[in-house]
Amino acid sequence: MIKIIEGGVCAAKGYTAGGVHCGIRKNKTKKDLALIFSEVPANAAAVYTTNLVKGAPLVVTKENLKDGKAQAVICNSGNANTCNEGGEEIAEEMCDLVAETLGIKASDVIVASTGVIGQPLDIEPIALSMADLKGSLGNNSQDANQAIMTTDTKEKSVSVSFEIGGKLCSMGGIAKGSGMIHPNMATMLVFITTDAAVSSEMLQKALSSDVQNTFNMVSVDGDTSTNDMVTVMANGLAGNEEIISEGEDFNEFMCALNTVTMSLCKMIAGDGEGATKLLECKVTGAKDELTAKTVSKSVVCSSLFKAAMFGADANWGRILCAIGYSGADVDVSKIAVSFSSPKGEILVCRNGRGVEFSEEKAKEILLEEEITVNIDLSSGKAQATAWGCDLTYDYVKINGDYRT
Amino acid sequence: MIKIIEGGVCAAKGYTAGGVHCGIRKNKTKKDLALIFSEVPANAAAVYTTNLVKGAPLVVTKENLKDGKAQAVICNSGNANTCNEGGEEIAEEMCDLVAETLGIKASDVIVASTGVIGQPLDIEPIALSMADLKGSLGNNSQDANQAIMTTDTKEKSVSVSFEIGGKLCSMGGIAKGSGMIHPNMATMLVFITTDAAVSSEMLQKALSSDVQNTFNMVSVDGDTSTNDMVTVMANGLAGNEEIISEGEDFNEFMCALNTVTMSLCKMIAGDGEGATKLLECKVTGAKDELTAKTVSKSVVCSSLFKAAMFGADANWGRILCAIGYSGADVDVSKIAVSFSSPKGEILVCRNGRGVEFSEEKAKEILLEEEITVNIDLSSGKAQATAWGCDLTYDYVKINGDYRT
Repeated sequence: MIKIIEGGVCAAKGYTAGGVHCGIRKNKTKKDLALIFSEVPANAAAVYTTNLVKGAPLVVTKENLKDGKAQAVICNSGNANTCNEGGEEIAEEMCDLVAETLGIKASDVIVASTGVIGQPLDIEPIALSMADLKGSLGNNSQDANQAIMTTDTKEKSVSVSFEIGGKLCSMGGIAKGSGMIHPNMATMLVFITTDAAVSSEMLQKALSSDVQNTFNMVSVDGDTSTNDMVTVMANGLAGNEEIISEGEDFNEFMCALNTVTMSLCKMIAGDGEGATKLLECKVTGAKDELTAKTVSKSVVCSSLFKAAMFGADANWGRILCAIGYSGADVDVSKIAVSFSSPKGEILVCRNGRGVEFSEEKAKEILLEEEITVNIDLSSGKAQATAWGCDLTYDYVKINGDYRT
Repeated sequence: MIKIIEGGVCAAKGYTAGGVHCGIRKNKTKKDLALIFSEVPANAAAVYTTNLVKGAPLVVTKENLKDGKAQAVICNSGNANTCNEGGEEIAEEMCDLVAETLGIKASDVIVASTGVIGQPLDIEPIALSMADLKGSLGNNSQDANQAIMTTDTKEKSVSVSFEIGGKLCSMGGIAKGSGMIHPNMATMLVFITTDAAVSSEMLQKALSSDVQNTFNMVSVDGDTSTNDMVTVMANGLAGNEEIISEGEDFNEFMCALNTVTMSLCKMIAGDGEGATKLLECKVTGAKDELTAKTVSKSVVCSSLFKAAMFGADANWGRILCAIGYSGADVDVSKIAVSFSSPKGEILVCRNGRGVEFSEEKAKEILLEEEITVNIDLSSGKAQATAWGCDLTYDYVKINGDYRT
């Protein structure tokens, strides 16, 4: 049984985390350097952005994870270390600094950066802060969580306990992500730690499979970042028999992982830049999963739909429009659409056409902070859910002048 | 030689146009019904939205244009006549009304609607206004232009004169389009009239080819409308020998058509919902045209790039990011990016990496109302240009509550 517990990335045995302000950001009250440490080497897996422009840290992390092992994560915010001179060397130096400071191998370090693209990243403030960063390591994952945030307004952290083969295991994750979010095969920055024993192969299998229905179904603004990365470390300290193949234990692990990733997904979508609402689009009755996913993503990505939700306007025509241009092969004359929230549910379209409904009731439902759009394609049994947020004045404000 | 002239859709011989307020819109000062009439039957061609959800008027127009002939255009704004009960019957009734009023064949009428999706369209106000609408026909295309506008803030009209085989020909067009603009094979509503003699086959060929580099390269918000349509009528009154094949005359005609469509494109992009700037993205040095188009469209579609332009922020990293996720096969290490406007040009990225530049100068360039982003992929000779606009507070405002 999966239980939500406290602790974030420090919930699982053997992990500590910390965060400091090292000086990459001018604002001294904002931490900008995070560290996560496993007291023993862990099996590790990761997925990365499919953007052809890849941040230098991703190149280095990918190389370091070739052996399926990692023991620490270092991540700075304020500078993406991407599209600049010598970015890979800087990322490698960051790994070297962690290795020296913690007495581990540089090739066991996961390195990540997030922030402005195209600026040189100065290693000096990072080097000068390594002692402090080590000193900040503890059982509180909040400092690390704060240090990886950029335009995020909320910390995004979740942790669970679960059982494998009678052994109590734990897993926790932290995430950052608010803009430039439209993942494709990977996403934003998410660091997950667990004390379950899982081989690196099975860990990669679990993560690669999970992101298809979680992070890859989130969109804030349609822009796939250059620095997206999700990593999982599994240090085995829970003492369960190592998961080396599919089966009951693997399924249990997948469920725990899915609980963590799904929670982080909703937190990321709900904290999209400028967002006032979390939007969930549930598609049912699709002829296959691809159709369901294509439709649900197209709807949560539509700027017009997102702006309508900001205005609590039940303008369902925009949903039909977004389904229509999604590229999915659907029978428009079979589509039903309803809106739901804690205030109830209201049907607005049946057989691809409008039905009479109370605008007043619709408004009441849409004024809530979490809205679900239910789309029944009535053409099969496949389903999918995508998450997004509304498009607001503040999205424009935040992105009209992000660099200053 | 192509010359810009006055007259809009009435510039060419034999065409009159008009517009009235019939009552589909509550605001009595806003015209909502337009008519364009050719005194003789014209050859006609059209391209339509590729959205799977298609407005009822498109279905009827497509049927009417099967014989390549048309003599009038009727278009209402305020209601898209889409995703509702009996939409096609209403569209047919609109054609019948025009046929009776003007004494022409109902199958020679192009019918179009634009506005809210999913509401029943009442034929009565249209029927009651036909006499007035006929009475409004004249040589001024402005009334028709105003009547097809929705959230447009500016009339979009252009006309040119040109010569074919020694005969002076004219061509003019009007357009509406401000939101839900991300054409695919066709676009927004555009009505073009010419007195040149062109067979319907060659007219279709010219139009289908032209839109690939004009309307299909415009994006306001990434949403492909359900009611997009571009039509051309050619009534032959200029007296040139009918164009029935490719050759010098066809090329001359294509140039005139391209002058008209390109102008309307820029007007549509520059008047995108809430827009304060027209953005042009010129890609050169691409290995093939598809690559150039993919890259330029991806950049003008990026919400992050659009918001940065609103803020006159030279955040070129977002351009690299949008190139990276476009799906185009490019060598990032060869990309150069510059911004230009009437205030000058500034290089911000070379070999895929940032170069030092004056933020002050960049700001001066980006504060202008027409900005060009020049992207050199340095990998070949193909090029393409796409048009868009900035993302502003007003886009959100306009679309947060469009229906009321």
